[in-house]
Amino acid sequence: MSSTPNATTVAVDAMGGDFGPEVTVPAAIEFLLKPHNKDHRIILVGLEEPIQTVLRTHGAKELLDSKRLAIHGASEVVAMDESPALALKRKKDSSMRVAINLVKEGVAQAAVSAGNTGALMATARFVLKTIKGIDRPAIISTMPCLDTSQTLHMLDLGANVDSTPEMLVQFAIMGSVLTRYVDKKESPRVALLNVGAEEIKGSEKVKMASQLLNESPLNYVGYIEADEIFNGKVDVIVCDGFEGNVALKASEGTAKMIMKVLKEEFKRNALTKLAGACAAPVFRSIQSRLDPRSHNGASLIGLNGIVVKSHGGTDQVGFEYAIQEARQQASRNVIGHISQEIEKVYSI
Amino acid sequence: MSSTPNATTVAVDAMGGDFGPEVTVPAAIEFLLKPHNKDHRIILVGLEEPIQTVLRTHGAKELLDSKRLAIHGASEVVAMDESPALALKRKKDSSMRVAINLVKEGVAQAAVSAGNTGALMATARFVLKTIKGIDRPAIISTMPCLDTSQTLHMLDLGANVDSTPEMLVQFAIMGSVLTRYVDKKESPRVALLNVGAEEIKGSEKVKMASQLLNESPLNYVGYIEADEIFNGKVDVIVCDGFEGNVALKASEGTAKMIMKVLKEEFKRNALTKLAGACAAPVFRSIQSRLDPRSHNGASLIGLNGIVVKSHGGTDQVGFEYAIQEARQQASRNVIGHISQEIEKVYSI
Repeated sequence: MSSTPNATTVAVDAMGGDFGPEVTVPAAIEFLLKPHNKDHRIILVGLEEPIQTVLRTHGAKELLDSKRLAIHGASEVVAMDESPALALKRKKDSSMRVAINLVKEGVAQAAVSAGNTGALMATARFVLKTIKGIDRPAIISTMPCLDTSQTLHMLDLGANVDSTPEMLVQFAIMGSVLTRYVDKKESPRVALLNVGAEEIKGSEKVKMASQLLNESPLNYVGYIEADEIFNGKVDVIVCDGFEGNVALKASEGTAKMIMKVLKEEFKRNALTKLAGACAAPVFRSIQSRLDPRSHNGASLIGLNGIVVKSHGGTDQVGFEYAIQEARQQASRNVIGHISQEIEKVYSI
Repeated sequence: MSSTPNATTVAVDAMGGDFGPEVTVPAAIEFLLKPHNKDHRIILVGLEEPIQTVLRTHGAKELLDSKRLAIHGASEVVAMDESPALALKRKKDSSMRVAINLVKEGVAQAAVSAGNTGALMATARFVLKTIKGIDRPAIISTMPCLDTSQTLHMLDLGANVDSTPEMLVQFAIMGSVLTRYVDKKESPRVALLNVGAEEIKGSEKVKMASQLLNESPLNYVGYIEADEIFNGKVDVIVCDGFEGNVALKASEGTAKMIMKVLKEEFKRNALTKLAGACAAPVFRSIQSRLDPRSHNGASLIGLNGIVVKSHGGTDQVGFEYAIQEARQQASRNVIGHISQEIEKVYSI
């Protein structure tokens, strides 16, 4: 076991996601084999047999011997379509629950799961509780930007509806901290999602949150409209979970529609087929840029422990990104910085 | 002047939009020259001189002589970026205001403007007032669908934020009536925009509206997620103006981003340029399909008079669509049917 001060142990829910160990285990191995991750460890949590089966085919003996890779048994698995409430109540030995327990116990500094989002949120909230000063955890993710050199975090993407202006301010603090310490941006520009059409002055909630943010030490730059999300003018976009989910899903639905129509049109005749062939790599790059989850997974932020949610249908590369994201948040003490920022804001 | 029972007079704000008479006047002439519009009339409202100038270049003498085309002077113009409140207060003789007055006076059965949306909404609301039983007017528009044979209406797209469950039910009634009588669909499927992620049960407002809609005589089919908007599974999508605006703008922003990236990629080398050349018509068709306003403009619905808002940057064809939409809503007595439906719903 590594004793480097900065060493991080990530608990991986090996059973979560559409593919389970077939994706999570190779991703964990790939992560550990990267030179810059040599100090870090992973604990694979789940049913020993299927995990072992995949491990054997990937020859991870050295990692296991060096204890950089370990298995922690868990006898249950939360189904992707299982009710969060029931999963929380009945599956106390699920791979998801046990992985989060390891974070609570300090055995691991972060947990990663590609499992049922609702169950993950319910379990993480129940086990880890929220950071002092944070009312509710939020789901935060990077969003695609026109300029790929840009990164943008948006929250809440669906954990909370009917959130209060105070909660929006807390989201702003958390997004700002994550952006500052993970993306290394000195003073992240924070914007509130609002409707800019002249006929609208914005909801009462947003107007009140804007007032609070103006009085805060955050680098609050004002309102942003949904059609401006992707142009990288700001670093953090804050919104209620309902609106965040609508923006994300509308964007995904539009992208899917355009891609589908494009493919149809390019299949039309020989010339368009040729065009389509030339364009294939273009479509691939765009599709990956348009899936926010393919960047590094979404995170549940605001809890006393780091929990990263990988897209359920992601592949090995996507899941490794999620592990990397979890590792970074832990190494850079995002939770500690959120607590400090909360105190700073509320002491004003 | 035509005396056919079904004859409709549309008041056109000739000065509105980014191009004013240069677009609105030819569009009006084109509309009147269509055989199926032979019974209908248009009143061009605005500054006589610029209107006359365009009329002369288009030789509309016959239409003017037959009184199917008339000019109604208005001495002021509302700027695209003017404050709605100030426009309402100070410009009592604006082309927009006078066109709406003609509807109020019964001289015209519908008004069309490509002008300042906020000012149009404020003016229309002030002059026409809402239909009995409707608390607030809404902005309704068709949305693009993957299957172009489908039409879908969505409201509210931005007139009201913080709307109540009762208002959402009123939106549902109005959208259902418009779809039934304009799109000729017997029993339009009405859905409520909601967030479907497991971690969310939906906002209190949406849950209450869903209950009310279940008890209504409308063909309410339940919740729909934003990524399902474009697949044509329902005929009417109801939401608060904040969420509707976010969905619309996020969708437009995504489409713009994809198109921009595609164009960049296709410019990369000779081969991709060839591909791009072949693909050009594809892009054009997609872009037009992705601008909901290019279908037939958005309508302000719920007022004692028909007001259609054309996209400010639209061309002659787009503006003619908007006139056509206004004419249809008038001919098919959408307002009368809304009143009847309101009584039906509230008498239950």
